Formats: sequence, C-alpha cells, structure tokens
Amino acid sequence: MIGRLNHVAIAVPDLAAAAAMYADTLGAKVSAPLAQPDHGVTVVFVELPNTKIELLHPLGEGSTIAKFLANNPSGGMHHVCYEVEDIIAARDKLKQQGARVLGDGEPKIGAHGKPVLFLHPKDFAGTLVEIEQV
Amino acid sequence: MIGRLNHVAIAVPDLAAAAAMYADTLGAKVSAPLAQPDHGVTVVFVELPNTKIELLHPLGEGSTIAKFLANNPSGGMHHVCYEVEDIIAARDKLKQQGARVLGDGEPKIGAHGKPVLFLHPKDFAGTLVEIEQV
Repeated sequence: MIGRLNHVAIAVPDLAAAAAMYADTLGAKVSAPLAQPDHGVTVVFVELPNTKIELLHPLGEGSTIAKFLANNPSGGMHHVCYEVEDIIAARDKLKQQGARVLGDGEPKIGAHGKPVLFLHPKDFAGTLVEIEQV
Repeated sequence: MIGRLNHVAIAVPDLAAAAAMYADTLGAKVSAPLAQPDHGVTVVFVELPNTKIELLHPLGEGSTIAKFLANNPSGGMHHVCYEVEDIIAARDKLKQQGARVLGDGEPKIGAHGKPVLFLHPKDFAGTLVEIEQV
C-alpha cells in the first residue's frame, strides 16, 4: 500500500539555526522559511535527491509542534510521511487492520495541498505516521 | 555535501510485530530479520521505492538500541542516514564547522559494509545523524 517516503519531519527550536546547519554544515539545498498558519508551523524544506526533510517550527497558538518541543527542547524527529494512491482506501484498510487514525478520521488538506491523515504512534512502534495521497 | 537519504532507523521493542505492521498493515515489502552482532542489532529492512526504513531491535549486551528503548519503551525514530561521497572529506568539513563526530572520529564499517560515522544530536536539532560513504 504505502509508496515513497514523502518526507521526514524534524521539529526544531530555532528554525534559522537548523536551516543554516543543513545548508552550511551539511551542504544541502534548503528553501526559504514558509509560514503555514493553517498547520501551525513555519517550514523549511531540505531537498535531497530522493526525498525531503521538513524542518518544522511552531507558528501561532496551539501548535502541536510547540507541545512536542516542550517535551523535546533540543528538537527531534517528529513524523514520517508515506505516500498512498488512494487515501480513503488506505484509511479503510488501516482501520480494518486495527490501526487508529487520529482526529475525526476524515482526510485534511495537508501542507502540500493534498489530502493527509495521521496514524497513532502507539500502533506504529512509537512513530507518528502521516499518509499523503499523491 | 549530503546526498540521498539512505534510511530512517526506527527502534522497535517487538521486531516481529513491527515487521508485520509494515508488511500487513502498511502493505510494504519487508526483509527477513538479519542479525548484525557487530552492531548490536537485529534489523528488518522495509523497502520503499525511494529509500528504506530500518527496524532495529537490540542484540546482545550493551546495544545502544537497548538504551534507547529503555527511554522510549514503545520505540521511536532513532536516526537518519545521509549518503556522502567521501566520508573523510565530509568528516573534516563537519568538524571545521563545529559539528561533533561521535566515538573516536574514525569511520567504522557500518551495517551495509560501508564506512559510517555518527554525528552528535545536539548539533543537529536533536536528531542523531549517520553519514555513510556510498
């Protein structure tokens, strides 16, 4: 069912410092910061040849990234995102297999303008999993 | 400097359950478990079209994965691995930029039979980073 790894999301306490670290220290290609108020984050995309890293920093009130950083002040890996062809079919199969879909179970339009769902980390070895229809 | 994302490593408390979850629930292609006593892990490779996920379970005494699981009993994302062309040149540039290389700073032969180094998570927004010469 799952296809490509779309991205790995890393929550960072200092977005400029993290972007500079990826650009200068690791020599990767990074985007300018992009505010995504609907998702409560500002994001910097790190473009790798086969996938991307998303550096996430809280934006506005009630950002889930702010909660994550309260527990992980240095930052850390927040989630992985796998691509699926049909998010409704994927969701129904996941639920049938006993996996818990977060929220109300209806896909939301994600940070890339495509439908996404998040799956409960307890069902995936402690890893928050996003699925995105591409 | 960094190239492809070689893999994302996820530490798991129950390797068979995690492998079944990736194979059956997420419908991915997974390998048989491979014991790597030199690295203190048993690993299951999850093959995605553009990269791989490595499910790691402790093997033997003093496994660093055992320590990680003691702090994260449900499991969790352990590290990301980026490919580099020349690990000595990469290491020297990283050190010049102030990044801390773990261990004695000399590349070791990693789980794929290629030279690897690990970088201090505090220098990379809380994320343990492996670099692998490919």
